Amino acid sequence: MKLSIVLSTHAAKFQAVAYKGDFEQNVAKIASYGFDGVEPAVRDPGIVDHDGLIAAVAEHGLEIPAIGTGQAWGEEHLSFTDPDPQVRQRAIDRIASHVPLAKSAGALVIIGLVRGIIQEGVSESQAREWMYSGFKSCVEIAGREGVRIAFEPLNRYETQLLNTARESLELIDRVGADNLGLLLDTFHMNIEEPSIEQSIKLCGDRIFHFHVADSNRWYPGAGHLDFRRILETLFSTGYAGFVSGEFMAVPDADTAARKGIAHLRDLGIE
Amino acid sequence: MKLSIVLSTHAAKFQAVAYKGDFEQNVAKIASYGFDGVEPAVRDPGIVDHDGLIAAVAEHGLEIPAIGTGQAWGEEHLSFTDPDPQVRQRAIDRIASHVPLAKSAGALVIIGLVRGIIQEGVSESQAREWMYSGFKSCVEIAGREGVRIAFEPLNRYETQLLNTARESLELIDRVGADNLGLLLDTFHMNIEEPSIEQSIKLCGDRIFHFHVADSNRWYPGAGHLDFRRILETLFSTGYAGFVSGEFMAVPDADTAARKGIAHLRDLGIE
Repeated sequence: MKLSIVLSTHAAKFQAVAYKGDFEQNVAKIASYGFDGVEPAVRDPGIVDHDGLIAAVAEHGLEIPAIGTGQAWGEEHLSFTDPDPQVRQRAIDRIASHVPLAKSAGALVIIGLVRGIIQEGVSESQAREWMYSGFKSCVEIAGREGVRIAFEPLNRYETQLLNTARESLELIDRVGADNLGLLLDTFHMNIEEPSIEQSIKLCGDRIFHFHVADSNRWYPGAGHLDFRRILETLFSTGYAGFVSGEFMAVPDADTAARKGIAHLRDLGIE
Repeated sequence: MKLSIVLSTHAAKFQAVAYKGDFEQNVAKIASYGFDGVEPAVRDPGIVDHDGLIAAVAEHGLEIPAIGTGQAWGEEHLSFTDPDPQVRQRAIDRIASHVPLAKSAGALVIIGLVRGIIQEGVSESQAREWMYSGFKSCVEIAGREGVRIAFEPLNRYETQLLNTARESLELIDRVGADNLGLLLDTFHMNIEEPSIEQSIKLCGDRIFHFHVADSNRWYPGAGHLDFRRILETLFSTGYAGFVSGEFMAVPDADTAARKGIAHLRDLGIE
């Protein structure tokens, strides 16, 4: 089982990012804990040294399975569903700007909160159409470079759009592109999916990436999720990607990372 | 096992109230489905016919285990932690106005969102002090009438104040009154408690009331919670109160009520 962990390339508000602060020092620590990869959370690839980032990770023998983009929403409020067409275009442009970095890193691009919420004064059907257009544009741009996009169903409190695996699969069908798939996250699934295991089976080979946090968004082992059952189900679908930790830095980032990986390695899943 | 279900005395925004609309007609339906009680959600007891409400429920052989008060937050934004002292006092007065109704009905009074959130510009320690004062006042007023108060830990997305059983027990200790206890809700516990069963044991005889909704806030049986294990643990503490359904009206209120009670009765718990 290949394990990675989310690492922000700079300070962020988003509390479920396990590591913040000095990037290179944190990569070294992550490698020393036994992780196989790092999942950078990048607000704006335009202000990141692509080669430097990739080299800093490779130096420690780690891979970059995926690049997170949610800070563009959290800090700049860019989204596919903003009533302002210029903001919608900037959100698409921002995702497009991740594609060269992702291509160089051999990573996929995650779409989480950048898809947006239903903002005040916007009808649900209008929001869904704008969201669809955003996905369609980004998937086409990424597809030309052979880069995959994984979008993450999020629980109802974070957005009204795409909470469950079932409605996410409908969007994927409608976009109709091979390079669009899902990032499933156990914290959100615990709230939204009638059965976590059944939903994993339902998504099957459309699962491009996988996030783990326990039921309380702490590190795996701190809540009541059955990670053995969940991960055995995941790998039974043929999934060969990373299992990536995105959880709160409690009691602190280092303890969370160490306890999380210990719990997952103790499962003995190959 | 005595089962009840939440029923609003008038239209409300709060989506987890299973029944809205015509109160008497709904009481008749609830009785016909086999419930033993009704838990009225009352925004303002001052505009409710107390005797009429109690008679409408008694006519169908049902009890009133508890009275919900959350609509005062949802519709009027009354809370113990508002920066405006007049609003804080109105929140306390509102809870106090539930005491005569609760006494007549033989019910306890629930404090959910009326406790408040940490509002902008208010420090966490200030919010916690105002909240404590609100509880202290309400518990004293209710205590003089022999009425019990049950407050509900809520998940992190609904308030930053009192999410877990452990911090709720600390508040109870600080208030130091026999008539203050907990309302535990399985939907919130699934998100916040490291182990639902361990937290039930931890709260023990401080559990005054109990809400059931499944992991996705649908009726019990629609998600992945193990209600047999949860309720057996609850009754092992000596709990002798009601198990009360508070879940979303999906696919519709009648179907949710019927399927929910069928699932719980099928457990065969006495």
